[in-house]
Amino acid sequence: MKLVKAELLTIGDEILYGQIVDTNSQWMSAELDKIGIKTIRKTSIGDTEEEILQAVSEAESRADIILITGGLGPTNDDLTKPCLARYFGSEMVLNEEALAAITELFERRGRTLNERNRGQAFLPHNCTMVPNEVGTAPGMRFDKNGKVFFSMPGVPYEMKRMMENYVLPYLKATFQMPVILHQLVRTVGIPESILADRIQAWEEALPTHIKLAYLPSLNQVKLRLTAMGTSKEDLEKDIQKQLDSLFPLIGEYIFGTDEEHLEEKIGQLLLKHHKTIAFAESCTGGLVSHTITRVAGASAYYRGSIIPYHNELKINQLGVQKATLEKYGAVSEATVHEMANRVRERMGADIGIATSGIAGPSGGTPEKPVGLVWIAYADGKQTLTRELRLGTDRQQNIQLTTTQVLNLIRQTLSGND
Amino acid sequence: MKLVKAELLTIGDEILYGQIVDTNSQWMSAELDKIGIKTIRKTSIGDTEEEILQAVSEAESRADIILITGGLGPTNDDLTKPCLARYFGSEMVLNEEALAAITELFERRGRTLNERNRGQAFLPHNCTMVPNEVGTAPGMRFDKNGKVFFSMPGVPYEMKRMMENYVLPYLKATFQMPVILHQLVRTVGIPESILADRIQAWEEALPTHIKLAYLPSLNQVKLRLTAMGTSKEDLEKDIQKQLDSLFPLIGEYIFGTDEEHLEEKIGQLLLKHHKTIAFAESCTGGLVSHTITRVAGASAYYRGSIIPYHNELKINQLGVQKATLEKYGAVSEATVHEMANRVRERMGADIGIATSGIAGPSGGTPEKPVGLVWIAYADGKQTLTRELRLGTDRQQNIQLTTTQVLNLIRQTLSGND
Repeated sequence: MKLVKAELLTIGDEILYGQIVDTNSQWMSAELDKIGIKTIRKTSIGDTEEEILQAVSEAESRADIILITGGLGPTNDDLTKPCLARYFGSEMVLNEEALAAITELFERRGRTLNERNRGQAFLPHNCTMVPNEVGTAPGMRFDKNGKVFFSMPGVPYEMKRMMENYVLPYLKATFQMPVILHQLVRTVGIPESILADRIQAWEEALPTHIKLAYLPSLNQVKLRLTAMGTSKEDLEKDIQKQLDSLFPLIGEYIFGTDEEHLEEKIGQLLLKHHKTIAFAESCTGGLVSHTITRVAGASAYYRGSIIPYHNELKINQLGVQKATLEKYGAVSEATVHEMANRVRERMGADIGIATSGIAGPSGGTPEKPVGLVWIAYADGKQTLTRELRLGTDRQQNIQLTTTQVLNLIRQTLSGND
Repeated sequence: MKLVKAELLTIGDEILYGQIVDTNSQWMSAELDKIGIKTIRKTSIGDTEEEILQAVSEAESRADIILITGGLGPTNDDLTKPCLARYFGSEMVLNEEALAAITELFERRGRTLNERNRGQAFLPHNCTMVPNEVGTAPGMRFDKNGKVFFSMPGVPYEMKRMMENYVLPYLKATFQMPVILHQLVRTVGIPESILADRIQAWEEALPTHIKLAYLPSLNQVKLRLTAMGTSKEDLEKDIQKQLDSLFPLIGEYIFGTDEEHLEEKIGQLLLKHHKTIAFAESCTGGLVSHTITRVAGASAYYRGSIIPYHNELKINQLGVQKATLEKYGAVSEATVHEMANRVRERMGADIGIATSGIAGPSGGTPEKPVGLVWIAYADGKQTLTRELRLGTDRQQNIQLTTTQVLNLIRQTLSGND
């Protein structure tokens, strides 16, 4: 089967000046890969007419699909739309649908439309408008000799919405791709290198039409199996066969096998066990609560949190004993033990969670260095505590502690299955 | 003065599959920008001979400097070296200096050299070897008709060491570059289009050697002034002159003129006014607290937070009157008014902040649609409230509300200057 080829153009001086990392092209190529489209080239250019025109024509000469991001804003340095209009010999016309969408967005935000925003509703007459559900710049689709061009905003969340709701479905419906199946296996709490050792024999025995990729992030490693073929059913069987032999090797570290995130998994476990939860966050400063409340419907199992950043509040807002703090200090097993139990009682939750640590970069002592963190889980029957020894990077310590807390909740609730 | 132009080629299938974000090209272009070299294009291609040869020749046709990373490893899928040898019509010869370096590196690591690694010491006869101080793959420099090509490893720390110790010094010594200065101006709370209207006349009056760019993100817009010339002192004067005329136009929206973030600015304002702060977060679920505590040293002004996600806790943990909740509901001006004042008292802070809203995607009513949010600021003397009408995207609503809250704090504290 003929390979469907795509090229990505990311437009913006800020990319060429090195002021931002171009994460759009990475995300887009990963999404294209999932549906069997091969990205053959990524090009980043500045907001310059000749550069844009040249790059588009070069991409057209090589690829079936050209995806362009950036340069659609309302300001003078945004040149993508006029350049594409010139490239495709277009007249600019007012697109009523686009104008209505922009107007509606503005009314919802209680703002009034100005000429610049109104100008964003003017589009080349020979393009198809691609709705922007979260921003003012509409996207555009051009068709030429069986090749398709999409122009999208450079703002990542606007681009992603557009890709997910319009571009990817359109490409799937328009081009004939080989069947490609991806299977994610999400692990937490095991380092990539140790994971790789554990599954080495399994990895080496993979059939040639199934590829494995390690996608590591902070404290989590995603394994991605990619199977390519012609029959969906066969590929699904092939992948299942591999999963069956993989799980016995690393099952205890696996929390999901699809797009679900750790916080969603925890939501499901809490609902399943009819449990509610509350947090007492010190060193994590709210990140655990934020992560849990990212999930729509979290109010069904999340009661609330206390962030007693100042020690005084650990006593008078949370009810930790003054003696405990004085004897063991805020960053101690005894303190998180009390914090978890007190927040559970105060918030009327089944499960109470606590974090306390030295996030850094400074504030450590020889006995309690930066990166020392205590976390606790209390459910009325038992109280579990864990000591973490992390690094000196503040943001990383906050992140890692949050993941460890979520994993402690997952393990404990899964154990109750 | 003639602009010195560079193009970057990053080579590797893992980039095209979207399995890694290409951070090398961002770092390289930022370093080039610092010494006055303009990156005109970045290209990422796979480990394919024809792709590599085509991309190199295209880059040569446009740029004075071509920097290539990736594809120098010892395995069969690393094609950059043979491709460059073919491109420059080279014979492969053993480079004694490179062999000595590799051997020394292996001895230092207590490993023995194998044939693959020994092969890495073979280089094209017409290139200049660029030492790799932290890896086994030597870099290469080719010179052709006054244009220079550097080939470097894709491993970021190997590439960076090579750039800092050899490539950048060589380019500085070889090319005559103009001076380039960048000045960031960070604004919050004003949409890009309205900002552009306000400063239109100023923008149109900018001298030709100073360029303006709008860098929008969620609820914030960065303005970037880029000045090019021959004297750093003159350019600094020119930029200052423009800032002096810009501030009167949009001063109230500007919170920084460098790399500083909004939460850092707020930390500085709180320290300056010797004020402490506490948060009662409902719809933001902890993101405001997390953002504030991302800043090292936040404990000097941040007391803590209560996240009364469940209404019951708004009453018994925060002290909001039952009657208020029953009469006006949780998402109302009256409720956030009380929340802000109560959290201020309970946490013993000078300033209390509250958020309550319908983050969505569901849970709205005709009177209180998804995206309706109330925020409040209380400092004992005054209580300020704001109504926000946001969209239907949960993550975005949580983000936007957080930025609005931070900006309300900034504005109020700046007003006290």
